[in-house]
Parts: sequence; C-alpha cells; structure tokens
Amino acid sequence: MRRTLPTAGDVAALDEADPLRPMRDRFVLPAGIIYLDGNSLGPAPKSVFAELDQAARHEWAEGLIRSWNDAGWFTLTDTMGDRVGRLIGAAPGETVVTDTTSINIHKALHAALALRPGRGVILAEAASFPTDLYMAEGVAASRSGASLRLATDSDGLASLIDDSTAVVLVNHVDYRTGVLRDMAELTARAHATGAIVVWDLCHSVGALPIDLNAANVDLAVGCTYKYLNGGPGAPAFIFAARRHHDHLVQPLSGWWTHAQPFAMESSYRPASGIRRLLCGTQPILSLRALKAALDVFDDVDLAQIRVKSLALSGLFMELVEPICRDFGARIITPRTEAARGSHVSIEHEHGYEVMQALIARGIIGDFRAPDIMRFGFTPLYLRYCDVFDAATALHDILRTKAWNDPRFATRSAVT
Amino acid sequence: MRRTLPTAGDVAALDEADPLRPMRDRFVLPAGIIYLDGNSLGPAPKSVFAELDQAARHEWAEGLIRSWNDAGWFTLTDTMGDRVGRLIGAAPGETVVTDTTSINIHKALHAALALRPGRGVILAEAASFPTDLYMAEGVAASRSGASLRLATDSDGLASLIDDSTAVVLVNHVDYRTGVLRDMAELTARAHATGAIVVWDLCHSVGALPIDLNAANVDLAVGCTYKYLNGGPGAPAFIFAARRHHDHLVQPLSGWWTHAQPFAMESSYRPASGIRRLLCGTQPILSLRALKAALDVFDDVDLAQIRVKSLALSGLFMELVEPICRDFGARIITPRTEAARGSHVSIEHEHGYEVMQALIARGIIGDFRAPDIMRFGFTPLYLRYCDVFDAATALHDILRTKAWNDPRFATRSAVT
Repeated sequence: MRRTLPTAGDVAALDEADPLRPMRDRFVLPAGIIYLDGNSLGPAPKSVFAELDQAARHEWAEGLIRSWNDAGWFTLTDTMGDRVGRLIGAAPGETVVTDTTSINIHKALHAALALRPGRGVILAEAASFPTDLYMAEGVAASRSGASLRLATDSDGLASLIDDSTAVVLVNHVDYRTGVLRDMAELTARAHATGAIVVWDLCHSVGALPIDLNAANVDLAVGCTYKYLNGGPGAPAFIFAARRHHDHLVQPLSGWWTHAQPFAMESSYRPASGIRRLLCGTQPILSLRALKAALDVFDDVDLAQIRVKSLALSGLFMELVEPICRDFGARIITPRTEAARGSHVSIEHEHGYEVMQALIARGIIGDFRAPDIMRFGFTPLYLRYCDVFDAATALHDILRTKAWNDPRFATRSAVT
Repeated sequence: MRRTLPTAGDVAALDEADPLRPMRDRFVLPAGIIYLDGNSLGPAPKSVFAELDQAARHEWAEGLIRSWNDAGWFTLTDTMGDRVGRLIGAAPGETVVTDTTSINIHKALHAALALRPGRGVILAEAASFPTDLYMAEGVAASRSGASLRLATDSDGLASLIDDSTAVVLVNHVDYRTGVLRDMAELTARAHATGAIVVWDLCHSVGALPIDLNAANVDLAVGCTYKYLNGGPGAPAFIFAARRHHDHLVQPLSGWWTHAQPFAMESSYRPASGIRRLLCGTQPILSLRALKAALDVFDDVDLAQIRVKSLALSGLFMELVEPICRDFGARIITPRTEAARGSHVSIEHEHGYEVMQALIARGIIGDFRAPDIMRFGFTPLYLRYCDVFDAATALHDILRTKAWNDPRFATRSAVT
C-alpha cells in the first residue's frame, strides 16, 4: 500500500515545532519568493547593512589608513579564518579567509605536491566542479613533473589512488548530484598510500557539521557565499593542518605571506603558520560583510542544521518522487541520509525551461548543464511549507507543461 | 640671494585659482585631518555609500542570485576594467578588474614567459615594491627554466636587459623614492632585445596620464585603492595589449577564464580576449565600491590632475628643503618634474617617530622601512594650504624635536 504523502497541515506542524524557526528573521527574504538557491548565493543577513555602514562610513571614511591597525583590517583574514575554522573542525590558526576558491585550490595543490616530492599525480574527479579541474590543469601544465589524472564515476576515485598519487582533490558534496563523500574514509584511503588530500568544501560548509581534524585532513578550501551567506563573491577560505605548517610552500608568495610584510625586505622569507597561504591585500568591504554572516552562525548548532536540512530535503524528495516518475524526471540525489548534502538535483530533458517556469512563479532554484535542476535546502531560513509549495509548483508545471513556453527557452549568461 | 618662500597668502591665492577645487567636495575628509596618504589608501568618495546600499540592499538582498545577470555582476570585471582602461591608455577589452596586484603579477609573468619560449630570465628591480619580487621569486621557483635576476639602482635596470631576458617587471613610480620611469623608453629598450615588459602601475594610476598603447606596452597591473580611491583592498586590474590576446596562457585558469563558464565542461578551453586573465568569482561588494570611485574620474582630466600634482609636490619640496637641510633630513624624490610621480619621500634617521608625531597632529602620511617618510599629493581633494600646513608642522616637529617622545616609538603591525 502506497504511503500517504504529507499534507499542508502536516508541514505546518513541522514548522510549528522547528527549533530553528526564529533564525528566519535574521535574513532579508523578498516577498513572494521561495529561495532554494542558497547553495549558490546565500541571502543577506539583516545585520550586514550595519556592518557595511560601519566598515565604509566609519572605518574607511573616518579612520582612513589607520584602520588597517585600529579596525583590525590586517588580521581579518585570520580572525574570519578562525570563525570559519570553528565550523569545519579546524583548530585556531589553521584557517584563513582569502582570495577565491580557485586560487586557493592552486595554492593547496602546489603545497601538496611540495609535501610529496617524487610524486606528481594530481587525482581528481572528472565530474568535479569545473574550476577545480581547470585549476588542476593549470598546475599540471605549469609545474615540472606534475600531471592530472581524472577518475570517472565508474572508476571510483578511491580505487585509483596509488603510490604515484601525490594529491587527491575531491569535492565534499558533488555540486550536481548532491552526493556527500565519506571524508574520514577517503582521507584514510589516500593516507594509506602516502597521498595528501585536498577537500573542496564549497557545497558543504555551513550546511552540515564538518570535522577536518577528526578526519585527519591535510588541506581544504571552500567558499563563503553559499551556505555561509557571506555575500556575492565573498572571499574564500583555505585550511592546512598544523602538522604541515612548517613545510607549506606555494608559488603565490605575495607580501601578506612574508614573515614581516612591512619590513619591506627584498628577499622572501615565509611567515610561520597559516599566513603562508595568503597572498596579497584582501577586499575589506567584502570581508566585513562576511563578518555579519558568520555572526549568525554563533547562535546555531550545526548538528541541528543538519537534522533540519535532511528533513527538508527528505520531505522534498518524498513529495516530488511520484511526480518525477509520472513526468519523465529523475531524482539523482541519494535518498540515504548519510550519502547526501543539502541540495537535491532532478534531471529532466527540459530542466532549463522547467526551472525558468519555477522562477517565474517565485520559486528560485538553479540549473546546471546539461539537464539538472538544483534545489538547495537551507535550514536557517527555509520552512517546511516552502518545500511543500515548491513541490506543488513543480508538479503543476510538469503536469500542465507550463514549461513549454518560448519565454522560458532563452538562455542567460549565468544560470 | 635666497628666494623668498611662498607664504600662506600665496597658497591661498593658488587655492582660489585651482580648477580642481570643486572636486574636494566629492570626498569624505575627516575634520582636523590633512590626508597625505592617498598614495596608500584613498579616502571614501561620498557617493560610495549609496552605491554599497544599492549593491547590498537591492541587488543582493532583493535580487539574490538573479543579480549575476540582472545587475551585471558577472561582467563587472570587464565594465570596471574598461573604465580603468580609459585612464591608462588601454583600448576597450584590454583591461579587467580582478583579484589582487600580487596575483595579477603572477599571471602577467607566466603569460610573458609563455610568449617568449626559450627565454627564462625575469628581470626586476632589487628595490621594487616587495610583493613584486616575492611573486617573481614564486614564479621562478615553481616554473621550469625560469629564473629571477635583480637589478640594483647602480646597475640600472635597462643596462641588464639582454637576449636571455624573457620579461622585465618594473614599477612605473618607485614606492619609496617617488621616481617616475620613462615608460616609452624602457619598453622600447626591452622590445629591442625581444623582451616583454610588465609595468606595475600601483603608484601612478589615477595620479598622472598613462598611455600604455602609445608606449606599446605588453602587460600591466595595478591596484585601485590608492589614487583611484576604490576602497580598502579593492580588486586590482590587469592589462594585456590586444596583439597578445590569442597567445595568453597563465596557470590560474579558473572557471571565469573558460570560454563558456556555465557550460560546466570538464576540460579547459580558454576564453578569447582579456577574460583569460581572470580566475575565479570576484568580491562584488568591493567591486561596486570601486564603481563609485571611478565615477569621480569621469568628471576630471588626468592632464589637469598631473599639473596640480606637480604643483603640490613642488610646493612641498620648496617649503621643506631648507628645513631638511637644517635638521638632518633629505628629500630623495627628484625635483625634476618629468622624473617624479605624485608622492614625495624624505629620509630621516628618526623618520618613524617624526611621522608618528605628524600623525598625532592630524597630518597623515606614512613610513616605509628603513627610514623613509612618504607624503602623497592627491589633487582631487588636497589644497595648497594643506601642503603649507604640513610643511609648517614638519618644521616645528624637527625644530623642537617633538618626535623625541616615547609614545612615538611604538611600532604597529602596519605603518
């Protein structure tokens, strides 16, 4: 006998009982929008405007150059780094916020190769988020002895790790499928052959508890503008386990990585510690917006976020599964809780047009080529009733073929 | 007979006649401060707060992910790049705003080395701004066949250019001495041996007219937070002459440099044109602050800025020269107008303490190790009377030894 699907009344009860319910009020959420794209760009925390005002009107305009010291600008990379570090199981002094994820991947791969002289293979997933691959190609092409090996889904990444592997670059949550990897297991597997592991946390940080040190991770990178809500293009982060700090070498050895940046020495002497993974002067206004976003995480428990995230995505999959079956769509995200992150992906031949039709109704997810609709479930500001309404709209659009409208077929630069 | 020094009355007449006088009102200038450090961090344009509000409250908070298309975020690197390009003699499509100066130096050096296969020498000035050297060291250490050669002041950079030189990395204005290099002459000298030239414009852009294409420059980088007033750590820029675009190769090949970033292809295909010199996702809030700063430059003529800059720095040198002579200080910036940029540097054994004493009186310049006081002359918001008052204060501090006070001896992290 088919189980009865949850009703609007059922989800109202879930919202009523939700311990994270008050957090929704900490964000600006435009009227008439159900925002299922926090896995791409988080919404604005309400406190960010005051933070930006403080940074621009007071620290910059009034403090001028003095704010590099007086407002702590020069160490924002470290203070924000430690606050991100708390969310990913890093010890203080193991994480800095700086540059972009792409650039931090470059640093991490070079640092890993330097830690494993005599090995040259960078192993990555063929279905990785593209910039990881493009950056790895850049390292392989420019560094003597380095090469890139790609694992397809059918190969399985773990099976290709061998004693030629210098470094394994792997996404914690797959940006397309939403699959969550077992961090401890894959790290142990790499370490067994002497390889270094670089974890890309872009699609997991802020969405679930991460414990890099418990898993004995070597290096990690990630962005702050998705589940952390740091603002468009907010600076990224990079983590290195303390045991590697004295051996960190990377070619982006800008003045912020120098032992004494303001001694203006003509020769390079690396800083001790994690500052070796910085490079140059950071965008302070964007860093200050991130501060407001991280303040929100001071008041929540990531374990509680994870529980609600799984409940939201589980509810969505339960509601849309029969719809998908009827209308030629397929959920590609695992139903097994331990195997998925915080977004759900659905393949449909006309996925692009279906997503445009959803957006036209105020339900914002996103689309990833060639045919994947993504729906992000972000426990800080989404309600169970939002999930219910999104599933209902998807059903209606597929059932009535509302997606089959020329205005939904026009592709924009960024989808 | 000794020439009579200008009086307060004389400088008041200069201010009265100054055609750039109205521009001062476009900036926030804190009461009681004479700001002579715009060569390190420019002050806030008054319009920046509304721009940040628009970016944060409307584009991010209301527009959410849609603003990547609808608010033009994705092409801000290019639109802001062209606006900077107009100030440096670049054609449209030859400049992008992205990342940091340090990172852009890395890209430019790799691109230059790729343009000159068979040559490996990076030639730079030993007295260069340190991050240029540290980044060049990073390239030399990580790229097979590359090496770094440093020219001391006594060598003279030009005399060391030979047919082993792949690329010459040179600062347009020396950050310590304020010396302005002859861009056309040095570029021609490098080209005569087949070398590529990378100009670092950090200390000249926005302070004087620059014509990269007239000088046949290959590549250039620079920052936007000094004379351009783009805000603390605002993203930097990189220029490449169009003739090199089809041959640009650099290892920071992130997804923003891909021919189709959102096609999510697993193999790298470089974009055509200047976007090859991007890398990853940029800090949009900081980029939007820069927009407000560049708006100011739409209403001024760089030739007029240059005339006033030379007049301000010339007045300062005229006023302080006899003081320096009497109190053991030395102006190290050239009196010859064609040979100096927009700041004046004075060596003094107790330069650090003297600068702290000036700052305590509200006159903000900066200090660069080991013994250099720097005074930046920024025509958009400085008056001739400010220069007069700064010179008077310097005289008083040196004459009374007011700098000889324990509270001026404490070094801070950033000076």
